[in-house]
Amino acid sequence: MPADATQTTLALTEALIRRASITPDDAGCQRLIAERLERAGFDIAWLPHGDVSNLLAVRGGQGPVLLFLGHTDVVPTGPAEAWQSPPFEPTRREGRLFGRGSADMKASVAAFVTACERVSESAGDEGLRLAIALTSDEEGPAQDGIRAVAPLLPERLGPVDWCLVGEPSSHSELGDTIRVGRRGSLSGEIVVKGQQGHVAYPDQADNPLHRLASILTELVDGDWDAGTADFPPTRLQLTAVDTDTDAVNIIPGRASARFNLRYSPASSADGLRERIEAVVARYAPAGQVEWSHSAEPFGSPPGRLREAVIAVIREQTGQWPTANTAGGTSDGRFIAPLGAEVVEFGPVNESIHQVDENIKVEAIGDLSTAYEAIIRRLARNAPSAD
Amino acid sequence: MPADATQTTLALTEALIRRASITPDDAGCQRLIAERLERAGFDIAWLPHGDVSNLLAVRGGQGPVLLFLGHTDVVPTGPAEAWQSPPFEPTRREGRLFGRGSADMKASVAAFVTACERVSESAGDEGLRLAIALTSDEEGPAQDGIRAVAPLLPERLGPVDWCLVGEPSSHSELGDTIRVGRRGSLSGEIVVKGQQGHVAYPDQADNPLHRLASILTELVDGDWDAGTADFPPTRLQLTAVDTDTDAVNIIPGRASARFNLRYSPASSADGLRERIEAVVARYAPAGQVEWSHSAEPFGSPPGRLREAVIAVIREQTGQWPTANTAGGTSDGRFIAPLGAEVVEFGPVNESIHQVDENIKVEAIGDLSTAYEAIIRRLARNAPSAD
Repeated sequence: MPADATQTTLALTEALIRRASITPDDAGCQRLIAERLERAGFDIAWLPHGDVSNLLAVRGGQGPVLLFLGHTDVVPTGPAEAWQSPPFEPTRREGRLFGRGSADMKASVAAFVTACERVSESAGDEGLRLAIALTSDEEGPAQDGIRAVAPLLPERLGPVDWCLVGEPSSHSELGDTIRVGRRGSLSGEIVVKGQQGHVAYPDQADNPLHRLASILTELVDGDWDAGTADFPPTRLQLTAVDTDTDAVNIIPGRASARFNLRYSPASSADGLRERIEAVVARYAPAGQVEWSHSAEPFGSPPGRLREAVIAVIREQTGQWPTANTAGGTSDGRFIAPLGAEVVEFGPVNESIHQVDENIKVEAIGDLSTAYEAIIRRLARNAPSAD
Repeated sequence: MPADATQTTLALTEALIRRASITPDDAGCQRLIAERLERAGFDIAWLPHGDVSNLLAVRGGQGPVLLFLGHTDVVPTGPAEAWQSPPFEPTRREGRLFGRGSADMKASVAAFVTACERVSESAGDEGLRLAIALTSDEEGPAQDGIRAVAPLLPERLGPVDWCLVGEPSSHSELGDTIRVGRRGSLSGEIVVKGQQGHVAYPDQADNPLHRLASILTELVDGDWDAGTADFPPTRLQLTAVDTDTDAVNIIPGRASARFNLRYSPASSADGLRERIEAVVARYAPAGQVEWSHSAEPFGSPPGRLREAVIAVIREQTGQWPTANTAGGTSDGRFIAPLGAEVVEFGPVNESIHQVDENIKVEAIGDLSTAYEAIIRRLARNAPSAD
């Protein structure tokens, strides 16, 4: 790999880590990136929303659109004294770069920017429109970031063909895992009201925990769907159970349970809600469920972007990456509905959201080289370049 | 009924209510009673234990022993401003006497004392030894009250034949229900440890709530025993479920549940413990149960005391009382092991431990008349009087 890919990407990653961009504060990251991209021939549009910074950079006027999606915000550091080196002082130790955001996802952002710089120097993106969308609200509520930017893209870019998300998708080694979609996330709280009473007189009470126990066992044992080719079966996890009293001799008057479903496109949120409400009604006719639907599932069937990403990883590492849909949600969910093929490929996620977040120094240059190769491959095969 | 039974019992009940004897404070109640009983020919023994007042009064030197068991302490008032009249100011309204302790159990104590006074005036207890044991620690931990006094009784009284407990046993009308035993009480807390993790990665976690849900459903559905002639089947009630975290996206690392069993003599505490630990082990091999055994069950087969109580109630009301073993625990559990036949007969328990505790004024005199008739009936039929 060219030495300058490693050095320039490492330098830009370190410059970004020094900017303490705790969500939703961009802390000047996007300004720095915009200056670099302008010099590389990108047009810059600022699309702020609320107190969130959003940047859209576009280069080239013709051909299919490859949109790189990233974020400049980071999660809080947790107790700073627990870090071996200050979280916003990029520090190299034992072949690794430590700092908040190093893996999630300032190295990816830097890697794509320097990849674009090299491509632009050698005119390697003819036949492709390169776009970069960055937000400072991915780690927060995600209301004013890509959710707000996505509706503006059709007018500014036309159809988005491919969306490459730089989120840390890798498990143990860079490129061992890519994401080709994400599961949906649906949470609920079941509230069962009973009749409080003394444990010695259960006939004068109505124990809501007894009703709830049956409901929960049925939910835990539930078989929701079989998944799809890219998605594992839908799964439910209980996260909390509570009562309105915990005196040893009192039957509580109210019991509640919270749960989360990570669901595949083989199920719909409405269908899951209906099934769960039916279980609740069977054991607790007056029971209620309060729902919180944080993400629809999204997934892309295999396409040119997945093909390019896998081919590049195979060329660079000799391995087949696993393509899965695991993990939390991603901003890719706002782009998939535009008709884009969405693939996520980024660093190892082992240390993200933890103290001593880090990335292998070697992986920073490798990632930039890989992004560059993906761009060149898509440009070479773009219809207008045929 | 003689007018003086009502008037003297009402006056003594009111004098006792005025003494704010919140457990374990006797507040002079026993001193007042001791003075009355001494005048009626009783010998008084003071058996204090810790900061608890215990009184034993005995009259007559021959014949079988009838022990009346009572307590002078009361539960706290709760918010005093929620009462319609001050809790320690006995107040008559609409045919009822209001005040903390009116039903549980100062009226019963007063009723037995005035019954003894009338019996002693007419020499109606020949052939019977009358004893009264009172404590100020029935509503509290019950460690220094009758539990401590019971072992002294064989030496002071000889064998106790009959024990009449004045606890409020009645349901809707005085005498509709008597107790002929009490269920045992066994509590436990199940703790299941798992492996905390993110809801999106259940395979990297071990959800203790999922194991607990199955355990609880099996416990709730459990068929423990069929009860006995006097005892209903053993029943289990869940009282609380909790987790070590309640974040919406975290699988907890620890879940716990508390429960209580009210059990009949058809089950043993050891047997119940074994069965429940087997259920826990089946779903959570590393699960643990912390036990708290607050009372063994006790019960008396039908005997002369039960016969006398039922006969008197039938004479006075024309109704058959229900003889059951419902309700919480009672100090009778400390006397039953001495070989005594234990029967509980006292006021309606509807308002006990609540604000505006009360008793029908009419019931106060009726109870004293009934106690008097029970004493006379047992004395008449006592073996030494044959």
